[in-house]
Formats: sequence, structure tokens, C-alpha cells
Amino acid sequence: MATSLLRVAPPEELLRPLAVPERLLLGPGPSNVPRRIQAAGGRQLLGHMHPEVLQVMDEIKAGIQYAFQTRNRLTLAISGTGHCAMEAALFNLLEQGDTVLVAINGIWGQRAAEIARRLGANVYELLKPPGKYFTLQDIEQGLVQHKPLVLFITHGESSSGVLQPLEGLGKLCHRHGCLLLVDAVASLGGAPIFMDQQEIDVLYSGSQKVLNAPPGSAPISFSERAREKLLRRKTKPPSFYLDMGLLANYWGCDGEPRSSRDLLCPLCPQGLESSWERHRANCTQLCQGLLDMGLQLFVEEEARLPTITTVKVPEGYNWKDITAFLMDNHDIEIAGGLGPTVGKVLRIGLMGCNSTSGNVERVLGALQDALKRCHRSRL
Amino acid sequence: MATSLLRVAPPEELLRPLAVPERLLLGPGPSNVPRRIQAAGGRQLLGHMHPEVLQVMDEIKAGIQYAFQTRNRLTLAISGTGHCAMEAALFNLLEQGDTVLVAINGIWGQRAAEIARRLGANVYELLKPPGKYFTLQDIEQGLVQHKPLVLFITHGESSSGVLQPLEGLGKLCHRHGCLLLVDAVASLGGAPIFMDQQEIDVLYSGSQKVLNAPPGSAPISFSERAREKLLRRKTKPPSFYLDMGLLANYWGCDGEPRSSRDLLCPLCPQGLESSWERHRANCTQLCQGLLDMGLQLFVEEEARLPTITTVKVPEGYNWKDITAFLMDNHDIEIAGGLGPTVGKVLRIGLMGCNSTSGNVERVLGALQDALKRCHRSRL
Repeated sequence: MATSLLRVAPPEELLRPLAVPERLLLGPGPSNVPRRIQAAGGRQLLGHMHPEVLQVMDEIKAGIQYAFQTRNRLTLAISGTGHCAMEAALFNLLEQGDTVLVAINGIWGQRAAEIARRLGANVYELLKPPGKYFTLQDIEQGLVQHKPLVLFITHGESSSGVLQPLEGLGKLCHRHGCLLLVDAVASLGGAPIFMDQQEIDVLYSGSQKVLNAPPGSAPISFSERAREKLLRRKTKPPSFYLDMGLLANYWGCDGEPRSSRDLLCPLCPQGLESSWERHRANCTQLCQGLLDMGLQLFVEEEARLPTITTVKVPEGYNWKDITAFLMDNHDIEIAGGLGPTVGKVLRIGLMGCNSTSGNVERVLGALQDALKRCHRSRL
Repeated sequence: MATSLLRVAPPEELLRPLAVPERLLLGPGPSNVPRRIQAAGGRQLLGHMHPEVLQVMDEIKAGIQYAFQTRNRLTLAISGTGHCAMEAALFNLLEQGDTVLVAINGIWGQRAAEIARRLGANVYELLKPPGKYFTLQDIEQGLVQHKPLVLFITHGESSSGVLQPLEGLGKLCHRHGCLLLVDAVASLGGAPIFMDQQEIDVLYSGSQKVLNAPPGSAPISFSERAREKLLRRKTKPPSFYLDMGLLANYWGCDGEPRSSRDLLCPLCPQGLESSWERHRANCTQLCQGLLDMGLQLFVEEEARLPTITTVKVPEGYNWKDITAFLMDNHDIEIAGGLGPTVGKVLRIGLMGCNSTSGNVERVLGALQDALKRCHRSRL
């Protein structure tokens, strides 16, 4: 063309190839992606309806059923992050005016309550300080007082490092005519969860934590009880993209399954139980090392999330100096707090292939170095 | 562990490596992914806040501004498909009771109307048969009659193969106090679009068409007029994940940018105008070849979408026999109709790196072969 009609020039930076440094990602996610999943991400695409894709989608479903320990029919992967799966769960479970009780001991409960309010639900909050978990008594009191249709609770609260005990919770909810919705984004594969035996009605997770895949595929499953609630809806969910009725039909004829399939691979060769045990053992080693350095853990022993450990910011230090020092001098990412824990804790993630004894030693060594070399104010 | 608590066994299929056949994807999307973008998809992850990621996000923004020909500040990529971007546009633009006029000449207008209804908007439909486009007169009549706050229209209607002319439409809408929302999922990069000069208020696209990337990143941009409507909202959008107010803040500190960045690369070295010209030329060659075979095109010449060509199903043939024959014997995907065009047309996509003269010859040869060898009923 003789005269260009273009008024906005192409950005020259995009002509340079992308440089991605190798870093050890020991924050609360994403975690590192092992070679096999990286390779899957580099494969050619297929179409939605190709026979290989339909086959792969069945395999993904079976993989999620294994990871969740469920036989639910309504089990699939959503095209979005774990946060998108949280919206899918709430968009489908709740209608305007439905009463929901949200257990809040960190940012994820806060977020669920915020989304439920956007949907016009009748939201009650059950509060605990960050670092604490809910007992069955706490929950029962809330159920009796508010008579919710749905209880939201976080299994792995990544902002505070708490692992919420789930035993008996499903049965309790069902005794009170309430559905149990559990967020397992930060815990799935790293700590035991048994969707069917624990009578969890809706369970979801993300791909970029223990599953060591890029974000963008989120496993989710609905029990028969939950499915019945969806079928009884009087209004459609606001989203078409996340409408489980449509997704259930589509599933088998939609998707970008390449890395979703492989995201479940890390769990299969070794098995779920060995994955749980490995996460437990490496978390124990990390906690002991932190205590040996004179640091204080944020969560009491019985409720520690094995995937993300929270340690109090050592006195006299600025947490940002420590995370920046690890990044700049050791190529290791760890994180500060999130939401209610900002400024209070450092968060160290050991998830999936990153949960190794060697990485524990590496991050402990780097922290030692940081405590020696970062600025410390006089106490 | 001595006795396993696991009741659901790991699926053995997931232990086998994934096999992905090489196919030429000449359907309405996804298109093939070139080696450079495949390689980007196989890279290690970085964290949301790493300096390289913030840099890459600025580059993505500049790339989208170039592809859209806009200087809008509120320009970013959503973590989802093009369909997810449609929801993001509608979720943010519309509030309960807002009047929206939806131009429907295929499935995407139908979908937008459906989502707007889920949001409680006051939806009016402006209808044309599939294969036809809207004139300024058609639109003006609708604007005068319904006084909408937003007009939705599809630039590249992939179900019918229509390219909607946009010249004068933005000015017309603004004269009537209406915002112009344009879906360019199937057209961006393959046909000229000038967001600022054409006074488009909200524009979005997807990644798996002309941009030749996996689905999962969707570019979107809002004009100042549109931004003001967002700021005037009385209620929050139902989704937190797609809340543009939050995304605008986050953008620069969230994301999985690897393939998003590289998805814009195909447009940069060659330039937008040469991409448009190449798509036009190869579409013309394809259409001529189809006519030479005695086939009939579904859309009149002035409104043909250069990325997806619709040809009437040849008399006496079952369209499924033809698409299956191409897949099985030539490793080429083409598609049947969608929504209102099911059973009426075959759809051939030539998008991004797939839009080459060689691929036109390949698909024409395969179609010749199919017409010879597929079953034909007596007429």
C-alpha cells in the first residue's frame, strides 16, 4: 500500500525474542513447571472436535476424579485460573437472595464473600484471625444461626499458611441442609482431601500450584447434591462461559487440553499418597530449619499447610529487603504476606516438583545469607 | 503408607505420553501455531511481580494498541478465550436495566444477546439473515427506535463468513448517545480495523485465530467514553475476575504473559497492512478456486470475511462426509456451519500463518478429491 493508514506504530520491543530467566519459584505460586509439562505447552494445537481431543478430555476427567478422590459425573476443567473456578462455583451455586455462609480466616474467604455479594446473595461471614482455623463447633454455630444453603471454606489458605481440617464438615453441613463448597487451590495434591468420603459438594483447584502447570486450567467437581441445586435454579448464572449446565454438555467437545492433561501427570506416576507424604516431610524439614534459625512460625503445628509455610518477618528486618535479596542474589522467589498478613509474614511455597529436600536446604541457606546481609534496624 | 485410603485409582492412560498429530487447521479456529509461539509456550514460568513480567506486560499492551490501532489507556489482555472477552465487555459495560441493541446476523450476536439478558439488561435485537450485513440505515433505524446505551456488532461473523463494514458506525452511534461495542475475534489482523479513527468504544479479539496462539489470552480495549460509563456504574460487575476496574489496576502486576506477548509477534515483523493484504489476496484466490470448481459462495463479494470463507454445501453431498474425508485423508480440518448456518455451508479458515497461497492450493486439491470420492446422492 502506498500511504499507510496506520497511526499507531508497531512496538519495536516485540521484535526482540523473549528472554525468560530460570528461577526457583518458592512463593505461593506459580511453582516451577517440569520439563514434561513445558514440552506439552510447546505442542501444536488440535481442533475442539478432533478425536484425540475427545479422548484427552476423558483422560483429564479421570485424572481430576483421582486427584479429588471422587466419582462425580460433573467433573471437568475450566478454561481459566483457580480464581475463575471460584467464580464458576459461586456463579452456579448461588442465585440472588440465596443465603451463603463464608468462613473467613484470610484473603480467599474475603474474596468469596465479595463475589457472592456481587451476585446479590445474602452473605454472612464467620470470622477467625489469619493463622487460625475453624472447629466443627465454630461452623455448627454459624449453620444454626444463619441457616445457609451453602458454606464456603478454604482448605489451603495461602495468605496465612493454614490447612483447614475437613473431617466431619460435610456431614455436619448436610445435617443442617447446607452444601459444602471447598477451595483447594493451594492444597490439592499437597495435602489429603477425599471429596466423596468427606462429603464435599463442590471442590475446585488451580493448575499453577502443586500441579506445576501454567495457570489457565482449573479442575472443578460437583456432587449429586450440588448438581440438584443447579438443576433447581430459577435464573441462569450471569456467565455463559462458566455455566456448568452448558459446560457439562460441551465437555467432550470443547477445550485446549494439552497442558491440562499433563498437569495431572505429576500426581499419577508417584501416586497421591506419596505426593502428600513428600509435601508433609519437606514442610516439616523446612519448619525445623526455620525454628533452628531462631525464626517463629505463624501457624500452630496442627494446622500448617504443607504447601505454603508462613514464617513471621524476623524482628528488625523489612520483609521486602529479604524477598528482594533472595531474588537478586539467589534467583529464588519467596513472598511477603497477602491481604490480612501483609507485613507480618514471609511465605515459602514448596509445591509439586518444587517440594524437595534439596530446595528446602537451598531456601534455608539463602535465608541465612539474607539475615546476615540485609539491613537490620537496631532493636 | 500401609493401607491406602484412596478409593479412586489413578487413570493409567495419563501415564502414556501425549500424542499430538500434525494437522493443517483450516477451520474457523484454532489455527496452527507457528514454531516461535510454540517455543514460548514451552518456557518456564515467572512470578506475577517479577521485573521481566512487568516489562512484558507493557510490551503486550503496546502490541494490542498497535493491532487495534488505538491509543486507549485501558488496553490489556484478559486470561481467557475470546468468548471470555465478550463477557468481560458486556459484564463491565452493562448494568441491570441498561438498554442494549444487538445486531444479529449469526451466532455471535445471538450469544451477546443471551449474555446481556443474563445480566438483566433490556435487550433489543436487530436481525439480518446469516450471510447479510448491516447498513448504516439499518443501524440508525434501530438506534432511533430503541435509544440503546450500547450497540453490539460483530466485525467478522465466523458462523456465516461475513465481514461487517464499520465505516461511519462509531460516529453514528455517538450522534445517538450510544457506545459502539465490536467483536473482532475472527477478523483482527486479517481485515482492517482502526479503533480510534472508527470511533469504536470497546473492541476485543481472541488469540487462536489470526494471531496463531493457543486460546487463553484475549486482547480488549476501552475508549475514554466507555471508561466513563464504567466509572458511572452504580453496581459492581458480577465477576471479580473480569472487573475492568480491578484489572486496570492489576495490569502490570498479574498474568501469564509468555504466549500473550508472542501472540502479537506475527503482526509485527510484517506489519498489519501486509497481513490484511495477504489475507485478502489468499481469500480471493480461494474464492476463485471454489467458483472454478462450480461451487457457490455463501456471502456476496463486498462482505466476505477474508479469514473465514463460507461455501454452500455442494448439492447432493452430506457436509459431514466432506469434512471427515479431508480430516482422514488429507489431515486438513475444515468445518461445517455453526448456529444458523449448520447444514448450509462449509467453512474454510485461512488465518495468520495459515493464510498462504500453498494452503489455498492444498485445500482446493483436497476438496476436489472429496467431491470425486465422497458419496453423492442422485439429484
